[in-house]
Amino acid sequence: MEHYGYIGSMRTRPGRREEVAALLLRSASALSEAGCRSYVVSLSEDDADAIWVTEVWESREAHDASLRLPEAQAAIAEAMPLLTGEFTRQETKVLGGLGA
Amino acid sequence: MEHYGYIGSMRTRPGRREEVAALLLRSASALSEAGCRSYVVSLSEDDADAIWVTEVWESREAHDASLRLPEAQAAIAEAMPLLTGEFTRQETKVLGGLGA
Repeated sequence: MEHYGYIGSMRTRPGRREEVAALLLRSASALSEAGCRSYVVSLSEDDADAIWVTEVWESREAHDASLRLPEAQAAIAEAMPLLTGEFTRQETKVLGGLGA
Repeated sequence: MEHYGYIGSMRTRPGRREEVAALLLRSASALSEAGCRSYVVSLSEDDADAIWVTEVWESREAHDASLRLPEAQAAIAEAMPLLTGEFTRQETKVLGGLGA
């Protein structure tokens, strides 16, 4: 079993973190039909404006295609004005584990 | 629902990455009994010696206690000589998503 993994962070404008996290979570339930095996939204403990998202997908293609879904496009459009533009991004080959 | 999240990376000595990843995966199946909801081991796509581990736990206490399990202690002891000592570590508050 080898899957596509994505570990990303973003920084929100001050005070907008909860709002962005809610947008990210809004369409999570639809992702399983798009080939997503795990999609976890979390808040940094040491940076009050940082959000982390960790994802496991059946393939890179499934991940890329998910970004073109109408729900994803709408969430991205709503979130962008609330972000500073600072992102980190790490792509991985998922070997396995629990919940992968 | 709010859980404890951990996103970490480590660098292995050249050529030892698969070996360390196997050690990390060896005890993954036992973690669910210790309060672990997700434990994903993956390989960096752009750094041939880097491993990423993303975890979701019912609590920080459950995570900390798991490190004292005999299986975990054994895996850590075996892995340490294969690592360079370069780690990154991010603790988070998990809000939810798919597979969290």
